[in-house]
Amino acid sequence: MTDLAESGQLITHTELALATRNRGMPLEGMRHDVTPVGLHYLLVHFDIPALDPGGWRLRIGGNVERELELGLDDIRSRPAETITVTMECAGNGRARLEPRPISQPWLNEAIGTARWTGTPLGGILAEAGLGEDTVELIFTGADHGIEGGEELDYARSLTVDEALRPSVLLAYEMNGRPLEPQHGFPLRLLVPGWYGMTSVKWLTRIEAVTEPFEGYHQAVAYHFQTDDEEPGEPVSRMRPRALMIPPGFPDFPERTRHLDRGAVTVRGRAWSGRAPIERVEVSCDGVWRDATLTEPIGEWAWRGWSWEWDATPGPHVLACRATDASGDRQPLVQPWNLQGMSNNLVQEVGVLVR
Amino acid sequence: MTDLAESGQLITHTELALATRNRGMPLEGMRHDVTPVGLHYLLVHFDIPALDPGGWRLRIGGNVERELELGLDDIRSRPAETITVTMECAGNGRARLEPRPISQPWLNEAIGTARWTGTPLGGILAEAGLGEDTVELIFTGADHGIEGGEELDYARSLTVDEALRPSVLLAYEMNGRPLEPQHGFPLRLLVPGWYGMTSVKWLTRIEAVTEPFEGYHQAVAYHFQTDDEEPGEPVSRMRPRALMIPPGFPDFPERTRHLDRGAVTVRGRAWSGRAPIERVEVSCDGVWRDATLTEPIGEWAWRGWSWEWDATPGPHVLACRATDASGDRQPLVQPWNLQGMSNNLVQEVGVLVR
Repeated sequence: MTDLAESGQLITHTELALATRNRGMPLEGMRHDVTPVGLHYLLVHFDIPALDPGGWRLRIGGNVERELELGLDDIRSRPAETITVTMECAGNGRARLEPRPISQPWLNEAIGTARWTGTPLGGILAEAGLGEDTVELIFTGADHGIEGGEELDYARSLTVDEALRPSVLLAYEMNGRPLEPQHGFPLRLLVPGWYGMTSVKWLTRIEAVTEPFEGYHQAVAYHFQTDDEEPGEPVSRMRPRALMIPPGFPDFPERTRHLDRGAVTVRGRAWSGRAPIERVEVSCDGVWRDATLTEPIGEWAWRGWSWEWDATPGPHVLACRATDASGDRQPLVQPWNLQGMSNNLVQEVGVLVR
Repeated sequence: MTDLAESGQLITHTELALATRNRGMPLEGMRHDVTPVGLHYLLVHFDIPALDPGGWRLRIGGNVERELELGLDDIRSRPAETITVTMECAGNGRARLEPRPISQPWLNEAIGTARWTGTPLGGILAEAGLGEDTVELIFTGADHGIEGGEELDYARSLTVDEALRPSVLLAYEMNGRPLEPQHGFPLRLLVPGWYGMTSVKWLTRIEAVTEPFEGYHQAVAYHFQTDDEEPGEPVSRMRPRALMIPPGFPDFPERTRHLDRGAVTVRGRAWSGRAPIERVEVSCDGVWRDATLTEPIGEWAWRGWSWEWDATPGPHVLACRATDASGDRQPLVQPWNLQGMSNNLVQEVGVLVR
């Protein structure tokens, strides 16, 4: 397997400047079913926009019967739902690739689970009345910058079928409180099961269109490319992944794990955006055994697991891997892609037992 | 000046593993007088401990007349104060040094300002009754690991005079809510004016001692060393620093700034733990001019500032520097130290005006 430390790869200043802005979740944060707001992962392409909730409006237009312009109170007055959703950055695991694309250098920690409250998108779209020949909805956020040589607002699209799934929300609360600015205040899209790039933050406009959207973040970024000649398949739902809370305690700054010999319960979480998690396996030094799954906490949320280990003195390597009900299982060998998308190579944790 | 990008220095895997756990504040977060919890900087040496607030106790002992053991309700029932405090990591700016110590690689963003609520430490110490020959109080947290070759809990000390300052709190709320786990739940020390290492999180024990504390995080770490032969002076209060919100909008991933020509108000914050901020200067391409300070928001909080700029087309370099009432002013040339402590070299922001 590729190991960044062993490979001797080094991180550039561009990557560091992103890593000190964006936020991974320390993996011990998986103790919590629902991630505290300040521990949830965060990836922002440009700057966090400053939106005045009084002046802010969501405009719904394009191929619709009635254009809508809604304030935050309008949206809050509609039927509300709260769902527990595990969200992961499509670039999670990018920094373990070799060669490594220059972007946010995630190792494993671009994850989080929150209770999101909002109103189903379908209700708003029904009110606007989608034209029959609508094929996609384009969701535009207020974050503005230059990417791929273009000056643009961040924007992504969904097919009508995906957009009308009942679990797709226009979300204004996270864990029971108004969104913090960095998570999309005052309103964001929430698309359970998909990688985080789909859940457009700081939403300002929804446009119904009759042709597939060709914007940069839809048609160029977030694709499985093997070279920049071919467009590649688009990235969509989260691939299965299991992560463990590294057992024992760490060194600073190296973060090597140390553990006393004897019985230890190794715990973690597993999720997939494609099908329910069916199995989690844990290996110690290459021997795979089944972990025990805990009760589900929600259709779109990670699933807890645990594994009893009788730790014997010496160095060990623990690993975990998830399989979902579609039969998709995490790889032991890394399939590489140019953008560093969806790298769900199994996590390995070295532990020194004393 | 030292510039990491220009120097071609690269970041190691150890530094990246820290950077994806710890959290800087995106500098546009300086828009807010009080930083949202999830945007505040975070530095954790070991793992975030899992403390059960029901079973947790704070023990006060050592050279005292009465040992105390207090639960969270005991502490919450005491007189409460709320103060607005700017906190900064002592390692802020470390990644700009050359050569660079291997630790958390902050550029400029290890800052945040919160409204902390707690009970003054002095009241608790009065109740315990400090022995007359007490010289220091040792504050021990629950975070456990190996650092400097020792297995230990994170611990720092304060002199009796510092500990009895009325603004020193045992804090259980941040921005009006219970501390999130990563900020020290259920209780942390809060020492306004000092770098963040002093405000021990996950506090479990306070011990009065008659000799200066020689623990690793007090006597070895957090010192201004020029080599590892000499102990160096201890790091204490925050040096003056001004930071600006980078104007315009960025590229992704490089984060170069782009701006339209014409009038623009450049804004930022400045603070010092040693004396009030007296002056902030801004330079465009090396010419320094005074910025306008906004009204103070608290004795221990950062001060806002603004500067009107008539941006002309082409590339420019903006910089800002603070001077406090003691006459201490940020340096234009970096004084180096072995641990990368307290690097308050002025911030520079390159801007392309069109």
